[in-house]
Amino acid sequence: MNSANIRIVLVNTSHPGNIGGAARAMKNMGLSRLVLVAPRKFPHEEADWRAAGAQEVLQQAVVVDSLAEAIADCQLVVGTSARGRRIPWPVLDPRRCAVDVQAAVGRDEQVALVFGREDRGLTNEELQACNLHLHIPSHEDYPSLNLAMAVQVISYELRMLALEGQLPEASTDEWDAPFSTVENMERFYQHLEETLVQIDFLDPAAPRQLMARLRRLYGRVRLDEMELNILRGILTETQRAATAASPPEKAGD
Amino acid sequence: MNSANIRIVLVNTSHPGNIGGAARAMKNMGLSRLVLVAPRKFPHEEADWRAAGAQEVLQQAVVVDSLAEAIADCQLVVGTSARGRRIPWPVLDPRRCAVDVQAAVGRDEQVALVFGREDRGLTNEELQACNLHLHIPSHEDYPSLNLAMAVQVISYELRMLALEGQLPEASTDEWDAPFSTVENMERFYQHLEETLVQIDFLDPAAPRQLMARLRRLYGRVRLDEMELNILRGILTETQRAATAASPPEKAGD
Repeated sequence: MNSANIRIVLVNTSHPGNIGGAARAMKNMGLSRLVLVAPRKFPHEEADWRAAGAQEVLQQAVVVDSLAEAIADCQLVVGTSARGRRIPWPVLDPRRCAVDVQAAVGRDEQVALVFGREDRGLTNEELQACNLHLHIPSHEDYPSLNLAMAVQVISYELRMLALEGQLPEASTDEWDAPFSTVENMERFYQHLEETLVQIDFLDPAAPRQLMARLRRLYGRVRLDEMELNILRGILTETQRAATAASPPEKAGD
Repeated sequence: MNSANIRIVLVNTSHPGNIGGAARAMKNMGLSRLVLVAPRKFPHEEADWRAAGAQEVLQQAVVVDSLAEAIADCQLVVGTSARGRRIPWPVLDPRRCAVDVQAAVGRDEQVALVFGREDRGLTNEELQACNLHLHIPSHEDYPSLNLAMAVQVISYELRMLALEGQLPEASTDEWDAPFSTVENMERFYQHLEETLVQIDFLDPAAPRQLMARLRRLYGRVRLDEMELNILRGILTETQRAATAASPPEKAGD
């Protein structure tokens, strides 16, 4: 996804801290084009502070007087909206919206994601200038997200979509040692069982479910070869210690 | 998903504003249990201000001295982590992590989502107290998310998963008028074509692709019955006006 085609547009932002927070959220997610429509206070030290390592997003931000100016060259304009507008409009959640945005960027279109005022959002007139409305499905007890947080959520969805197929599917996709083969695991279980018998923890005449439970434990965790070697080493040492400690009469049998 | 089984644990937070921001993000996404491990400054007016309508999350927050205390009764502990730890550990992105959290909550387990310090995250020792590590796949140019933003992203993923199947699949699932049938659309196209011929916009001898393009336009937008009635009304009025304006000799033909 070419993020240069995506601009975040903040309309009449009151708190400069939110502009800074939005800039940081954008850069964290690989976005960089910020357009500010008549911000109350900008530039401002509070914006700089909240932007932290995303100063350049603020420095390159474009300040304009009207929403019309901010979106003039855009082919897809998405407006963020609370629920319950008088005239229904196509409304998407951030995940489904990201799909539309990615498709538009794929056609090399210019896309604007428009966020309204902290207290009142976008006006009906501004929402009608958008092709699509986006709603973050927040909880009914307190639905109003902080402005920069809303930018974070939507930027995150765009990034997740851009990374799709590149993220590890399983939690262990990036591992530093190969996982054990079944063959090596079987050798380990055999070694473990021998050792448990030798230290009198396992009675071969009444084994109960002990080995089954241990197999389930080690099977579930998926041992890598390094871990397996460590466990085998422990077993070997345990056997040696047990043999050395055996009473001489038994050892002589 | 029973959100009472999920706690957000913030370890040694420096900035009280981040505690407030995290509280708001939680309540926005339907979470309420906040545990603070030795926060630098709490309670604090900056936390209250950033929490906005989520004061009750702060008021009910539990303050403890150690991570061990915060997670003692938990069955699943997830630690947030930057990439590149020395010892690889099962690492999930927030979306896949949410699935594990939901499954644990479904088994009525207690789950902790643990977030580290603003500047250094969690220590290796703290990470080793976790069953699972979570990484937000941020951009390599500036990977470090603000603490409250990280809480927002992960709380959002939990909410999206909880709402799965309840969110409208298409952007028009909640609409105030029924969408038009093919039959009514065909009547409209016929009416439109007649009218365009009548106003000499369409030459039946050389129609080119005009109707095909108009069909594509209206087909793509999916008209509802109310919109269709409006358009039909416009066509009827257009025909009436065109007839009235016709030169008498032609009208008399």
